[in-house]
Amino acid sequence: MTSRFDVLTIGNAIVDIIASADDAFLSKENIIKGAMNLIDTERAEHLYSVMGPAIETSGGSAGNTAAGIASLGGKTAYFGKVSKDHLGDIFTHDIRAIGVDYQTKPLIGEPPTARSMIFVTPDGERSMNTYLGSCIELRPEDIDEKTVANSAITYFEGYLWDPPLAKDAIRKAAEISHANNRKMSMTLSDPFCVDRYRDEFLELMRSKTVDIVFANESEVKSLYQTSSFEEAIQAIRQDCELAAITRSEKGSVVVSRDETHSVKAFAIDKLVDTTGAGDLYASGFLFGLTHGRSLVDCAKIGGLAAAEVIQHIGPRPQISLSELMEQEGL
Amino acid sequence: MTSRFDVLTIGNAIVDIIASADDAFLSKENIIKGAMNLIDTERAEHLYSVMGPAIETSGGSAGNTAAGIASLGGKTAYFGKVSKDHLGDIFTHDIRAIGVDYQTKPLIGEPPTARSMIFVTPDGERSMNTYLGSCIELRPEDIDEKTVANSAITYFEGYLWDPPLAKDAIRKAAEISHANNRKMSMTLSDPFCVDRYRDEFLELMRSKTVDIVFANESEVKSLYQTSSFEEAIQAIRQDCELAAITRSEKGSVVVSRDETHSVKAFAIDKLVDTTGAGDLYASGFLFGLTHGRSLVDCAKIGGLAAAEVIQHIGPRPQISLSELMEQEGL
Repeated sequence: MTSRFDVLTIGNAIVDIIASADDAFLSKENIIKGAMNLIDTERAEHLYSVMGPAIETSGGSAGNTAAGIASLGGKTAYFGKVSKDHLGDIFTHDIRAIGVDYQTKPLIGEPPTARSMIFVTPDGERSMNTYLGSCIELRPEDIDEKTVANSAITYFEGYLWDPPLAKDAIRKAAEISHANNRKMSMTLSDPFCVDRYRDEFLELMRSKTVDIVFANESEVKSLYQTSSFEEAIQAIRQDCELAAITRSEKGSVVVSRDETHSVKAFAIDKLVDTTGAGDLYASGFLFGLTHGRSLVDCAKIGGLAAAEVIQHIGPRPQISLSELMEQEGL
Repeated sequence: MTSRFDVLTIGNAIVDIIASADDAFLSKENIIKGAMNLIDTERAEHLYSVMGPAIETSGGSAGNTAAGIASLGGKTAYFGKVSKDHLGDIFTHDIRAIGVDYQTKPLIGEPPTARSMIFVTPDGERSMNTYLGSCIELRPEDIDEKTVANSAITYFEGYLWDPPLAKDAIRKAAEISHANNRKMSMTLSDPFCVDRYRDEFLELMRSKTVDIVFANESEVKSLYQTSSFEEAIQAIRQDCELAAITRSEKGSVVVSRDETHSVKAFAIDKLVDTTGAGDLYASGFLFGLTHGRSLVDCAKIGGLAAAEVIQHIGPRPQISLSELMEQEGL
């Protein structure tokens, strides 16, 4: 069955506001380092008032993944809810300009487009503070049936369990996808997000609503409430068809029912900002998977895309990933 | 006479929208490479529709210079006109967050805050397309007398000759500055800008309205309509007290009535985006000048600040320039 899109991604449509900060700042402002902290309007205003000079760039986990797949030369679509305002225009421009098909109807009126204030510490770690804005309005009506039916893989963020109606949208997408013999994939997003929705995420996997799972080491450990990476790997093997687990500079591990592949990380010159690392790993992996590549190659392409994004500020590629892939002989 | 501010800078308050592009794109869209192209609303809409994915960051030549001086540890103020809108909020946040005193009253209503669509080609050169927006409303009433009187140097952009009323604002500032035994400084901004206002710029220098001039090689050649750098240097020596001329990878030349100093450029790893190079050179030079440093040291600090800004996307420093200066033993 041919598909119009290699991958459809669904997520919170967010514009990132990125600044440097030190660890003392994070403690003083009670920001959990390395995590996605949800914030309300009042806290957003406070944090902006104490934030250093910033740059603005389109973000959102699944949006970054779609942008990465497009940059690799894949065919992608994206669902996510912005508001009809200036940040919404920026988000819409950027995702379309990189070649992603993006048609979700923007919200007219309040709340405004979502934004995440991201503080990058000298060690390159990012700590996100997300005001969900119009993302809370993503709902089943935003799931375009034809697009899902025509996408080889539909991928979504675990973060979508935070807004109230998105999970219904995802269940609708999963039904359409599977009815068309397509695959569903998700990322666990964040260890605290896993903590909030552990039972539901496990149910998504065990009920086969989700076939392919992305996670990093702390997320998969959080999912199975274990401090042993080995134990977590053995557990996830039982719960889904395929899992790709990233381990920062240790590379990644790909786990299917009866195979395990450990793949090294790409060498980098300098870690600048980890924002988008996991998102871009998923881009590379999903691109490989929808282009008939081996699981090891999928992990390598994922590692390459992640290596590009962590060497500059901002969560989306700044160079053509398809050219980079060619240079690296992938 | 002590001063509250080392440097006050005055300029067009602009938010930059930066994307990659190749040379073929510039030709197709009739964008003069390396220059500042002035555009109207219609052209701004067209260019945004064909622009690749972008990042947004505060810019504006004199705004970048003020940001750089603040990052070096200097005391700075800035005058420039934004509108009370989202881009205006971003501009205001960023310049204050880096430590610049910025109090210019925003325009209420149309036109919106200025933006410049900047295309960066693979050689690192930037080509700017500036919609002046609310900058056209900067006028003499925006010149706060006390701030000018309390600034050791007042520095402005030649670009201010494009909006209709800013030149009157500058003449007012020059009167206050000189009445308080302060110095006036300007940058020639852009070779095409020099072409538009050559006689007026020469008059500013020869009437001693301006004491210290910044320019790059093509601007100073354009000013004197000569293809000989030597000839241009000899000419500018007669027309102002002090001139600092940047020559990209060849470093800079500092010229006073009876001295000439050539200072090498700082070695860089990789040229990414030249946006802000001249602005940050001026930051370093003016910081040095207001901190009792030798002319050679002023040029070195300028070169160091420029080297930082051209190694990443965006026209303002991403790290503390005062720490960088210390590391380099300056």
